[in-house]
Amino acid sequence: MLHFADRLTNRIATLSNPSVVGLDPRLAQIPEFIQDQAVEMYGETPEAAAEAIIQFNKGLIDALYDVVPAIKPQIAFYECYGHHGFRAYEETIRYAQEKGILVIGDAKRNDIGSTAEAYAKGHLGRVDLFGEASSTINADALTVTPYLGGDGIKPFTEICEVEGKGIFVLVRTSNPSADEIQGQALGDHLMDEHVASLVEGWGRELIGQTGFSLVGAVVGATYPEEARALRNLMPHQIFLVPGYGAQGGGAEDVKPCFHENGTGAIVNSSRGIIFAYQKNGQPGEAYAEAAREAALAMKNDLGQLF
Amino acid sequence: MLHFADRLTNRIATLSNPSVVGLDPRLAQIPEFIQDQAVEMYGETPEAAAEAIIQFNKGLIDALYDVVPAIKPQIAFYECYGHHGFRAYEETIRYAQEKGILVIGDAKRNDIGSTAEAYAKGHLGRVDLFGEASSTINADALTVTPYLGGDGIKPFTEICEVEGKGIFVLVRTSNPSADEIQGQALGDHLMDEHVASLVEGWGRELIGQTGFSLVGAVVGATYPEEARALRNLMPHQIFLVPGYGAQGGGAEDVKPCFHENGTGAIVNSSRGIIFAYQKNGQPGEAYAEAAREAALAMKNDLGQLF
Repeated sequence: MLHFADRLTNRIATLSNPSVVGLDPRLAQIPEFIQDQAVEMYGETPEAAAEAIIQFNKGLIDALYDVVPAIKPQIAFYECYGHHGFRAYEETIRYAQEKGILVIGDAKRNDIGSTAEAYAKGHLGRVDLFGEASSTINADALTVTPYLGGDGIKPFTEICEVEGKGIFVLVRTSNPSADEIQGQALGDHLMDEHVASLVEGWGRELIGQTGFSLVGAVVGATYPEEARALRNLMPHQIFLVPGYGAQGGGAEDVKPCFHENGTGAIVNSSRGIIFAYQKNGQPGEAYAEAAREAALAMKNDLGQLF
Repeated sequence: MLHFADRLTNRIATLSNPSVVGLDPRLAQIPEFIQDQAVEMYGETPEAAAEAIIQFNKGLIDALYDVVPAIKPQIAFYECYGHHGFRAYEETIRYAQEKGILVIGDAKRNDIGSTAEAYAKGHLGRVDLFGEASSTINADALTVTPYLGGDGIKPFTEICEVEGKGIFVLVRTSNPSADEIQGQALGDHLMDEHVASLVEGWGRELIGQTGFSLVGAVVGATYPEEARALRNLMPHQIFLVPGYGAQGGGAEDVKPCFHENGTGAIVNSSRGIIFAYQKNGQPGEAYAEAAREAALAMKNDLGQLF
């Protein structure tokens, strides 16, 4: 099984594009023609919401699979529609993988050991089905939260190692109140720097041929100084970087998340890509083409950095 | 809409039982007769796993609804079976609520503002369905993680206030590596104490008639000294206390989580109740009765504290 960091790094190199598109399908923003088709089939039901999400995502994946190496579905926008939404999440993953796109499930899961193992098996590995190991959700990677410490992380890394999968641990987020915990001072360093050292340790023995660990890190682009410090503390982590585009950051802001040779980070944009048609005042029918153009513009923007 | 903390506190008082049963339906431990029925209906599939979980849980709920005020399904053991498992989670919630049991979804969700709002609407409130607000998962409360700070919490509390629901924020967990983050020193106090102060602040304006906030706290029973400190820092929080029974704690260990009048905490046991039949060497057919006896024994054990 190929190492996750190698799979991702190679795919980034092949497409010359260190970006990931966040599939956050807010129902009300999905083009009306897709909503209408779904309602015609299923009425105004959660089934219809799931159907609209699936069709919306398939159109995006068809338009993006030869431009971006990965998608990052935010599971909150799926599971809020209950099991119907969860099915849409699973179908999105399968469809993307058929097209060769890697899928980073943005689920920020976390729990103590045996429960973390259930998350890891379900999202990344295989679950026990009456004595048979069987894959269910099967994303390529998952975002996880560090608050419980290493024994909530180990069940994930053990399964990732066997299955060629990865995790991205939240280290520094880009929201205004992130400092309330992540920015607290522990003597001469900040909590996020402490977490960075933990993450480096959790991933140390799990490094692939491209020099990166299957344990990556989520590092928001809001604080370039802090990103530089975290880059030094986590040389072997691939940074998953939110905060580009709609959340305010530009290419210069995310630059400190990369190594000087331009490797080691993948930058996310969600709304700025998938709802580009709205920003441009284009009709809903143009949403996929608008997303492709926005993704190419982002690729060019990031391409000027190195 | 009745305040969540009042609903829970009143139900605890009515049943004279400050305990909650964790419904963590590990498939391989579900009695064989239930597994066999499910496989007969659906083969060795995720549908069969979901069916076995539903039947197992219904039997438990029938046996427990007049003994315990609340159940706490751990969603990892459901969603690991994909959307079929997620449906079992939803059906468990509905069935429990029909019997008058409150449901605390143990999901440890967290994210930045607009994403946290999607989780909050899905798990506790109503989602937008083509312009209509509609409830989907509809648990009574949810566990959440604090790593992103207050603006990841506010979307939950806003919806809880309207819907009579609650959250329990992770403050101190009972796993061995909890100290790696929660036990770090910020000057003269620990990180978990800092989080406790944040939680107290997040819940301050949201206190019900019984004196408790709809913002509760998860506080593990492993460190009684630390529990005492956290109790003082969070006078208005209901503590959700894991670590009783299978995780090692007894009644004396959880005592510091309560106020001196015996209010303000609800103690969880999972495996020690739902799989009591295995510990006793009883046949699978006796699982529900064994769970009821174990729940009554736990009630007696806790009842001696005050």
